[in-house]
Amino acid sequence: MKIAILGGTGKEGAGLGYRWAVAGHHIIIGSRVAERAEAKAAELTALLPGFGEPLQGMGNVAAAQAADLVILSVPYEAQKATLEEVKPALVGKLLISVVVPLKPPKLSQVWLPEAGSAAAEAQQLLGEQTRVAAAFQNVSAEHLLDLNHAIACDVLICGDKAADREIAAQLAQDAGMRGIHAGPLVNAGIVEGLTAVLISINIRHKIKHAGIRITGITD
Amino acid sequence: MKIAILGGTGKEGAGLGYRWAVAGHHIIIGSRVAERAEAKAAELTALLPGFGEPLQGMGNVAAAQAADLVILSVPYEAQKATLEEVKPALVGKLLISVVVPLKPPKLSQVWLPEAGSAAAEAQQLLGEQTRVAAAFQNVSAEHLLDLNHAIACDVLICGDKAADREIAAQLAQDAGMRGIHAGPLVNAGIVEGLTAVLISINIRHKIKHAGIRITGITD
Repeated sequence: MKIAILGGTGKEGAGLGYRWAVAGHHIIIGSRVAERAEAKAAELTALLPGFGEPLQGMGNVAAAQAADLVILSVPYEAQKATLEEVKPALVGKLLISVVVPLKPPKLSQVWLPEAGSAAAEAQQLLGEQTRVAAAFQNVSAEHLLDLNHAIACDVLICGDKAADREIAAQLAQDAGMRGIHAGPLVNAGIVEGLTAVLISINIRHKIKHAGIRITGITD
Repeated sequence: MKIAILGGTGKEGAGLGYRWAVAGHHIIIGSRVAERAEAKAAELTALLPGFGEPLQGMGNVAAAQAADLVILSVPYEAQKATLEEVKPALVGKLLISVVVPLKPPKLSQVWLPEAGSAAAEAQQLLGEQTRVAAAFQNVSAEHLLDLNHAIACDVLICGDKAADREIAAQLAQDAGMRGIHAGPLVNAGIVEGLTAVLISINIRHKIKHAGIRITGITD
């Protein structure tokens, strides 16, 4: 699958893109500045000798145009401007939002936008022509570049269509994690807010990457 | 500790009360109807031969008056009326809310009250003279009465005072679970909403009691 990662120069987007490239996807790192995207793609490609050219870099709009599936991995503050710019390129596509709305300086206190979640806000902005799902918010970027490091975190996936959630679940698996259907997009605020809770736990326990696991699933 | 459980005739409150009684606490089951509370207390006491009389039953107001610590375990719809009735009896005390706001018929879709959470609404109603914390929202009542059944769920605890969260953490431990400080009361909506996410997971996977665990805590 040809996957664009808008804001893919950031730690989370780059780490996911790296793992997906290893899994055989064609990754397009997107950035506001095309040169920065190209540099990050080259940097990640250098970590994967023998893989050919699994990662490219482009400006966000070109990246969104070129891809079948688009990941939104920008800071929340940049979400609106980014989406307004790429909106036409997203028509008919699935956008998976990785965005976590956090309000500095108290990152350990839950803060959610008026729409209920960053993902719901994205859906409002993009309209019905683009499907939005939410996933990967709780995954620490810390160890994504270390393929030998098992990520001790399930991926909660929210979206109104089961088929879209299933795509995200496959991407979770491709990145070495378990994807779990967490209900419709209206539930995304809980998954996004959980990141602030995990930051709170990190601070309290002086650890760096608290995660979550769902228990009780037998299959 | 003398603990009143308002709405303690329900499955969750009764199950927690049972486990706390086994741990040595004096439990007062509270109910709108004193006779129903007495019957439930007698029923639970009968399960604990040799424990003396670790559980009593009373009307909610008398229960709140008699206790050092009060647990709120009523259906969300009954929260306001219950708290208005017991408010004077809660002055100077800690109230731990177990309440999960759910909006039928779609229990798998997150719904939160305007205050952001049921616990925050309780805090608004009770004012500064009562401290409110939130905990146990994600714990399935299913196996609480079976002491041999390990509960595969961490207890996320929200509250503005660390000392209050610590009391809830001790109660979690007394009930055979791990309590985790999940930040200030403003985070309670995430923990409450997580229950709808777990219900969604239950439905999807045809299981009965999905739970959560926090990973990455080393101590």
